[in-house]
Amino acid sequence: MIVSFQGEIGAFSEQAVASAFPEKNPEVLPKPSFRSVFDALSSGECDRAVLPIENSLFGSVHANYDLLRERDVRILDEVYLRVVHHLMALPGNSIDNIRQVFSHPQALGQCAEYLETHMQHAEAIPAYDTAGAAKMVAQNGDRTAAAIASDAAAAEYGLEILAHGIESNHQNYTRFLVLARDSDSPPPPVGERVKTSIVYAMKRNVPGALFKALAVFALRDLDLYKIESRPLVGSPFEYLFYLDFGGSVSEEPVQRALAHLSEIAAYMKVLGSYERGRRE
Amino acid sequence: MIVSFQGEIGAFSEQAVASAFPEKNPEVLPKPSFRSVFDALSSGECDRAVLPIENSLFGSVHANYDLLRERDVRILDEVYLRVVHHLMALPGNSIDNIRQVFSHPQALGQCAEYLETHMQHAEAIPAYDTAGAAKMVAQNGDRTAAAIASDAAAAEYGLEILAHGIESNHQNYTRFLVLARDSDSPPPPVGERVKTSIVYAMKRNVPGALFKALAVFALRDLDLYKIESRPLVGSPFEYLFYLDFGGSVSEEPVQRALAHLSEIAAYMKVLGSYERGRRE
Repeated sequence: MIVSFQGEIGAFSEQAVASAFPEKNPEVLPKPSFRSVFDALSSGECDRAVLPIENSLFGSVHANYDLLRERDVRILDEVYLRVVHHLMALPGNSIDNIRQVFSHPQALGQCAEYLETHMQHAEAIPAYDTAGAAKMVAQNGDRTAAAIASDAAAAEYGLEILAHGIESNHQNYTRFLVLARDSDSPPPPVGERVKTSIVYAMKRNVPGALFKALAVFALRDLDLYKIESRPLVGSPFEYLFYLDFGGSVSEEPVQRALAHLSEIAAYMKVLGSYERGRRE
Repeated sequence: MIVSFQGEIGAFSEQAVASAFPEKNPEVLPKPSFRSVFDALSSGECDRAVLPIENSLFGSVHANYDLLRERDVRILDEVYLRVVHHLMALPGNSIDNIRQVFSHPQALGQCAEYLETHMQHAEAIPAYDTAGAAKMVAQNGDRTAAAIASDAAAAEYGLEILAHGIESNHQNYTRFLVLARDSDSPPPPVGERVKTSIVYAMKRNVPGALFKALAVFALRDLDLYKIESRPLVGSPFEYLFYLDFGGSVSEEPVQRALAHLSEIAAYMKVLGSYERGRRE
């Protein structure tokens, strides 16, 4: 089994792969962009893909929702990972030597309080991703440089962690989805913990459209886990909606609710039914 | 009138200030972070603040929603700006000379197709913000360097635009809010185009909680413009909701709807009533 993810080896997404396939030890296929991960899945270069879809501080990853709408793929599973950032440098180095700290701008932002308090002597420099910053610090051999990245990145590139868990908000989680080709997906699971993700758009100027769309689920006692309206400027639809609700597309109430929704929605796509992930 | 925004002079947010105050030509106060903009507003260092709250490709700016919840501020207005990215370099330069393109990672991502097609000879290098990248290119005097930024940044730093509108998706809008101190806010407006923004949280394990909360508005014929659930991991609340709906807190149906919502919500804050902004 080959599983693709976006980023360098040691990236946070690679931890999500390990968490999603704890006993299978899958072969991993790193790709530079979300689109190239979807391409690898469509072409059969990989069997599964693991992609971020939502972060508790930064919200939904619209780029991946767009790719989910475009491609013939299905959601099989989800995992939640807590985002923990560490300061790392070449082995034997100390914080006092550091003059430059490299990381992704979001990670630098999440660690701004630590940097302002403990590292006023160092400059924060943006990089494409956290694992890439760790790789660069390891390869350049510069003892004035440090990176902010995960412990997996420290292990992968032989860096020493100088400070653990330096993010300001310790309640920062990212939700990842496990995807397969539609043609290579098992039948949808059924059970108490199963939920279904859909994307839909309403016709313009339908009064109370959003409420009617939600009534479809509430009237059938299907719990809502996520609802998000995304404005679509310059589109024939005014909004796109992301919805996660309790139940499986294998069950009749869900099938009836979706049929009912089709009556009022201008567009709808079922992304998959899968077990709700547990948060650590 | 002094208006604060986040970023360098020439930043996209400065254009939002000009758009929000078209005839007032306000004095601008650039600040390095969203939090420092809120600090400037709270302390009286500025009279108004203009901050991004939502982007059509990247979603809601949760950091600013969090600051809106924490501080005694009110939303007075909103503006939508289309995000247009230009390639710019020192005057008289040509695309063939460019070996390095600096910009914010999101801007580099939005222009990836153009860079792959027209600039394979150049390396894309992440920077903190688009205007900062333009400033650096102007100050370094390096004829192999270019930046991706707005036309305001090109004008501010004396750069020449080598290619216009190089973003892949031309339907990319950012919504900005105009904020004032609660104590320095005029009475809420009333009228057909007025909407109200609120943030609320529901008690855990209330069946159909989200649907009940929306019924409060639908039963009073108040239109919903935005709804977003944000998972709160490790919090006593499971979700935080962002809601924009038609009507003003000066009107009785809105007051009754909010009173009704308070009965079932664990937490609620009204962020302001203001005229809906027009998209270009």
